[in-house]
Amino acid sequence: MRIVIVGGVAAGASAAVKARRCNEDAEIILLEKSGFVSFANCGLPYYIGNVIQNREDLILVTPELFRERFNIDVRISHEAFDIDTEAKKLRVKSPDGVITEAYDKLILATGGIPIRPEIPGIHLKNVLNVFTIPDVDRVVATISEGKKTAVVAGGGFIGLETAENLTERGVKTILVEKLPQLMSNMDEEFAGVLAEHLNQNGLELHLNAGLKEIKGSDHVESVILENGIEIPCEMAILAMGVRPNTELARKAGLTIGTAGGICVDSSMLTSDPDIYAAGDAVESIHLVSGKNVRIPLAGSANKQGRVAGACAAGSKLSFKGVLGTSIIKAFDLTMARTGLNEREVKFTGLQYKSVYVPGFSNATYYPGAAPMIMKLTIEASSGKLLGAQAIGYKGIDKRIDVIATAIYSGLTVFDLEDLDLAYAPPYSSAKDPVILGGMISSNMLRGDISYVNRSEVQEMLANGNTELLDVRTEEELLEGKIEGAINIPVDELRKRYRELDQKKNYLIYCAVGYRGYNASLFLNSKGYRTLNLSGGYLAYTMNV
Amino acid sequence: MRIVIVGGVAAGASAAVKARRCNEDAEIILLEKSGFVSFANCGLPYYIGNVIQNREDLILVTPELFRERFNIDVRISHEAFDIDTEAKKLRVKSPDGVITEAYDKLILATGGIPIRPEIPGIHLKNVLNVFTIPDVDRVVATISEGKKTAVVAGGGFIGLETAENLTERGVKTILVEKLPQLMSNMDEEFAGVLAEHLNQNGLELHLNAGLKEIKGSDHVESVILENGIEIPCEMAILAMGVRPNTELARKAGLTIGTAGGICVDSSMLTSDPDIYAAGDAVESIHLVSGKNVRIPLAGSANKQGRVAGACAAGSKLSFKGVLGTSIIKAFDLTMARTGLNEREVKFTGLQYKSVYVPGFSNATYYPGAAPMIMKLTIEASSGKLLGAQAIGYKGIDKRIDVIATAIYSGLTVFDLEDLDLAYAPPYSSAKDPVILGGMISSNMLRGDISYVNRSEVQEMLANGNTELLDVRTEEELLEGKIEGAINIPVDELRKRYRELDQKKNYLIYCAVGYRGYNASLFLNSKGYRTLNLSGGYLAYTMNV
Repeated sequence: MRIVIVGGVAAGASAAVKARRCNEDAEIILLEKSGFVSFANCGLPYYIGNVIQNREDLILVTPELFRERFNIDVRISHEAFDIDTEAKKLRVKSPDGVITEAYDKLILATGGIPIRPEIPGIHLKNVLNVFTIPDVDRVVATISEGKKTAVVAGGGFIGLETAENLTERGVKTILVEKLPQLMSNMDEEFAGVLAEHLNQNGLELHLNAGLKEIKGSDHVESVILENGIEIPCEMAILAMGVRPNTELARKAGLTIGTAGGICVDSSMLTSDPDIYAAGDAVESIHLVSGKNVRIPLAGSANKQGRVAGACAAGSKLSFKGVLGTSIIKAFDLTMARTGLNEREVKFTGLQYKSVYVPGFSNATYYPGAAPMIMKLTIEASSGKLLGAQAIGYKGIDKRIDVIATAIYSGLTVFDLEDLDLAYAPPYSSAKDPVILGGMISSNMLRGDISYVNRSEVQEMLANGNTELLDVRTEEELLEGKIEGAINIPVDELRKRYRELDQKKNYLIYCAVGYRGYNASLFLNSKGYRTLNLSGGYLAYTMNV
Repeated sequence: MRIVIVGGVAAGASAAVKARRCNEDAEIILLEKSGFVSFANCGLPYYIGNVIQNREDLILVTPELFRERFNIDVRISHEAFDIDTEAKKLRVKSPDGVITEAYDKLILATGGIPIRPEIPGIHLKNVLNVFTIPDVDRVVATISEGKKTAVVAGGGFIGLETAENLTERGVKTILVEKLPQLMSNMDEEFAGVLAEHLNQNGLELHLNAGLKEIKGSDHVESVILENGIEIPCEMAILAMGVRPNTELARKAGLTIGTAGGICVDSSMLTSDPDIYAAGDAVESIHLVSGKNVRIPLAGSANKQGRVAGACAAGSKLSFKGVLGTSIIKAFDLTMARTGLNEREVKFTGLQYKSVYVPGFSNATYYPGAAPMIMKLTIEASSGKLLGAQAIGYKGIDKRIDVIATAIYSGLTVFDLEDLDLAYAPPYSSAKDPVILGGMISSNMLRGDISYVNRSEVQEMLANGNTELLDVRTEEELLEGKIEGAINIPVDELRKRYRELDQKKNYLIYCAVGYRGYNASLFLNSKGYRTLNLSGGYLAYTMNV
């Protein structure tokens, strides 16, 4: 049996090794168009920042190791460009010219291609990518030449990580993004917190600012944005996303899905019975929406590669789908998500609720407790978790991973209340933010309290007959309040509640929602109509 | 309606507040025998170490706040000592003498009582506990008097945390434990790692060393262990565990369970239709074993209190059960567990497998990646997760919480393979240790590989016809190997495998199990019989 794999980074390398483990006798050939296999894609920005100091650390497995340990024939600088699916043959550009490779089973792990729009100046020198080792070699060389200013175009994972690392390396960096927000996979209020944090760390940001032109005679000298602003710079880094590299698959007539990726079944088999595919070029089922999506992430690529390798080699494994769980570090902040964000849930047509959960990384009486804001999006009828987003300084990864596991398992917010999570003061609180989120959401679904979200406040006030009631202390009000709110501190409410008007609706808030909840319940019991601002003033301002 | 709550720390305080939230009209009386309610029990050791610097930080909610915000009548220094369940009346020792309190619904949150064995010298001065605020006041005062040596008796949570904090405070501390290991809720190999780490941090340890006598004329001057060793010291801290305070419940004829705690149903109702109970004095269903257990932990106490308060006040909530998820910091190390440990699984009679999973907190090419060892215990037939333990320096809490969520959800190791967890180099690896654990365990259950655990190695070798094969490099062997192992580095195995004897069984190991797995698969394909040491040399030595 002859297994040929096209593409040797995450999915391809995983596929090759797993195929070998499942089948010692197969001939396994790994074709990689670049000069490197199995490198640490996700580490590239950190090599620019000198956070990863040794270039060798970026190379996870060498061709020699593939050969010696796994008897895998790795051929770098080999680019497959055509598949004859009838004859089961590949045509490949190699250093020795075009060659032909026969296969019994083929695995396409062709990954993605960084988007480089055909704008004027795109081919100037120092217009760079951060996608391969040679790419970052170029960036590092450019910095070493003394270039001190950079424009990074694109506010997604690679753009942000690159901008942070350039800044850490002492390069004055301006980040420009075509969309109105950074990190388009997050809801806008989270992206806003991130933008503010980047600003505070010396990054200049331009949103709603697509790249129109790159100017320079030989090297880049400035970029011109669609809004007309011209930004002088000595290098421009394109991080505008990656499109799936499906060219080979399309030419071979393989089915391409609605999300633009190669269609595969749960064994990673394409529409051709002898061709598997895995990694950033394929689409997968989203475990919440049930829809096909293409979310290029390393974790999925590795798992898919493993499944494709096993199945191509005659074993059985399956890949269930994705939740799009992802995380980004931006200076001191961490932001992460899993499942669907609120914007995505809206598209599903499901009746849903979003709840903000301010919390802390660990017990507040223990040093180092850091604030966080989490947002749970849940199905209104059942309480089933649809997605979560979180931002903060510590412990964000933990909460998102717990919720990712809960969503995978089909848990509801009523289950979150019951989770038995590890508590000691350095690690968590007796009511972990995840459990607290379960309690808050469950209280709402049980009808104990009605929540209004930050985005609904102004509309609600405009409709009239609703008054804002701030139940924080007078000292807290000095730090800011929502325009127009009246104030009765919660601990005076039992004496002073008659000051309120039973004909009005009161939209109550405190700092994080805890005192507001108590105030709501008390006033409700006295015959007042109340609503509560989810997550309180903290979620309203997102001032984490 | 008149709700009386006996005990005002975690469960009692939660119950009181939730009862108020569910019922504004109820009269709620909280009786607490000590001088403090709602204090940070779990923070007490850290106040000794000056990690928590302000004593006020230990007090979470004051009696005044209970009154003003919640209209809860908190009475400190009130000890209920008798219940007339017919008349629904409590007798209470108060500063004004014995009083009687009527109740419609009663909630017992009587917690635990620290064990103080009746050995000679137990009543000497400076024989202290770490259970209440006055307790730690005494410890801090004793340190302030210039006492510089302490014996801590008991190697559980409180004993370890106190010993660490005394050490941090500059007190020479000796920890003595009656059992052969520290942290009896962990399997012994994990406890061994912890003991070694404590030693390295200057703590003297005595295991198998129960307290026989405390000597001194007025103040403690030394302790004498059951093994005859005498240890001079200026203070002795008893942290020998806590027994459930069920006296009041027993006197009232409430049903006490097999685990020694008050029996309750899922609404926290005892055998009396008007008496609820919550917290350390009750027993709960273990969600893995289905058995009743008493695992006194703050997280459960808070959740149970909330349920008891709601139900006593006429609302409906339920408490499902516990997983015994817990975590401890010991200097730089973190150790945690969830579900059942291997020793506990043995008692269930289930057919099970344990798998060691060495891993790292995050991508090894990113700075600060710290090693960890995880052990998954799973049902052999189904792959259902029964429990997990982990030890390491970073990210232990995250992995245990993810697995706790998985166990709660009834997931198998095949599900762990598919989890979509958040990956970026600062937080995890493309194959997170949890996912890796799923892959390793699934490979085993699918029959790809046979694992032998560290505890089985010597017996297997003694039975003959099994040879140890170390597939690490020659350089690695210089750092130690298992006695008697022959060596063929994995990358030479394809050339040299004929040196091996097909009539023998080979027990293969490498550093962490990865290369051993590849070696096993290769040799199996060539007709050799192999077994693999789970977790490799790292798990064998537990040298994390």
